[in-house]
Amino acid sequence: MSGAPPGAGSEPPHGHAPPTANPARGPRGLLQRMDKGGIRHVVAIGSGKGGVGKSAVTAMIASELRRRGRTVGILDADITGPSIPKSLGVTGPLVDRGEGIEPAASRGGISIVSSQFMVEDEQTPVIWRGPLVTRLITQFFGSVRWGALDYLLIDMPPGTSDVPLTVFQTIPIDGMVFVLTPQDLAALIVKKAMNMARDLHVPLLGLVENMSWLTCPHCDKRIDLFGAGKSARIAEEYGIPVLGRLPLAPRISELADAGRLEDHSSAELTALSAAFEKAIESATQASMTVL
Amino acid sequence: MSGAPPGAGSEPPHGHAPPTANPARGPRGLLQRMDKGGIRHVVAIGSGKGGVGKSAVTAMIASELRRRGRTVGILDADITGPSIPKSLGVTGPLVDRGEGIEPAASRGGISIVSSQFMVEDEQTPVIWRGPLVTRLITQFFGSVRWGALDYLLIDMPPGTSDVPLTVFQTIPIDGMVFVLTPQDLAALIVKKAMNMARDLHVPLLGLVENMSWLTCPHCDKRIDLFGAGKSARIAEEYGIPVLGRLPLAPRISELADAGRLEDHSSAELTALSAAFEKAIESATQASMTVL
Repeated sequence: MSGAPPGAGSEPPHGHAPPTANPARGPRGLLQRMDKGGIRHVVAIGSGKGGVGKSAVTAMIASELRRRGRTVGILDADITGPSIPKSLGVTGPLVDRGEGIEPAASRGGISIVSSQFMVEDEQTPVIWRGPLVTRLITQFFGSVRWGALDYLLIDMPPGTSDVPLTVFQTIPIDGMVFVLTPQDLAALIVKKAMNMARDLHVPLLGLVENMSWLTCPHCDKRIDLFGAGKSARIAEEYGIPVLGRLPLAPRISELADAGRLEDHSSAELTALSAAFEKAIESATQASMTVL
Repeated sequence: MSGAPPGAGSEPPHGHAPPTANPARGPRGLLQRMDKGGIRHVVAIGSGKGGVGKSAVTAMIASELRRRGRTVGILDADITGPSIPKSLGVTGPLVDRGEGIEPAASRGGISIVSSQFMVEDEQTPVIWRGPLVTRLITQFFGSVRWGALDYLLIDMPPGTSDVPLTVFQTIPIDGMVFVLTPQDLAALIVKKAMNMARDLHVPLLGLVENMSWLTCPHCDKRIDLFGAGKSARIAEEYGIPVLGRLPLAPRISELADAGRLEDHSSAELTALSAAFEKAIESATQASMTVL
């Protein structure tokens, strides 16, 4: 059965990006992406599904990379549900002194751009349809003075609609990391997002399994919240590594609520961040070999 | 500081729905909404934030309403991240014998329409930009033979962009229920969605706090995962009731993964569904009094 909406007639079928009107196409039929400037690695972090802790994982990896001495930025592409500013305790506004937008900075020195910095108070919704949202995303990349960065992490919104399409087609990303939780249902939706990325020639760098387990504060025993995770099987299916597993820890929520997620560190996070850097280096070398 | 994107010039400011080109406007400047047909109550269930269990809550309320003898449908408006079909074990395809699209039905008799029924397999992503997605939503309401229903529940996607705008502007909803988890961050994003609904004259019916607590399977003690919830405070702030609180229960995940979420029942769910019906009756009477 076709994926076109009933009665949609000549609309493009599912599973393929609808053609966009404007951008020029480069080699291999890809859209012409923007220049990377002084940024070494641009990595999207997403999940397809919301609420798997993608933003927390992004903020924690960024914080750990800073502790490892890297220069790091976060482009918060979750325009209508931004979580990065609150979890890192960063407020706007964004300032443009005529030479481009200056990103805000966290206490630990992470450069951040988010739609959250553009509203009067943190409860004001950004009610925009797709074209405005996607224009903002390209501005967040191209009109911001990111400067020299080892890593720019893009915190992707849920879904497989306008924002991921725009990011994949116009921002020069080196690859994407997928965050999932152990439930089957989350796995199903992350696979949709992985298939979308693969269809659009975005390298899949690895998986992060979040909320893998919980330690009971009363009896100190491990609770496998959602049964045995499916990450290993999915990673094998797609030929990519599991970069790490993180627990559901009330402490992480508390720190995020207090805007101090940068203070969190753990053995799991250190291992995850090392695997993250290794995966990106491998992908970069592989792509240089191909060229 | 304005919410318009830097350099956006004449774009509409944040916090207000951008004008849409097409639909006619009815009384009080509202857009002309579609006819309710044989449906008594149309209720949107959303959260702004993803992953708070909104779809599971929708499916569980629908199942409980069925047990109470109501006729119930679910319009799965989470086009790019549908969860309803898998959790209720329902597959497509949707069939149109020339008189409109027939909804699929769960074992318990819930009528369901979802984008999931339109793709070849459950891992195929629906990669559509906003206009196609919103057209599909209006078809899911207007071109489906819902028949006589006591309740049509609309499972809303995360965010405050195209889909909620379209639902609020074109579907005759009686009100909206908001699902949140106890974290501050989730509360922040649900408030954005609540403010959007309020701006667009959608009655706020009440809150459901999900993942409120967990019972340790080893020591049987209660774990408050995310500290004391903020629901009561938010409910008071908006002048609406807390309809109920549900635990994070691995059993619920297991049933959803197995497509048997309809089999779940609990004292909390019974109380929640009773409060849900009461809130809708009150809202309906209030609106009749105004007229």
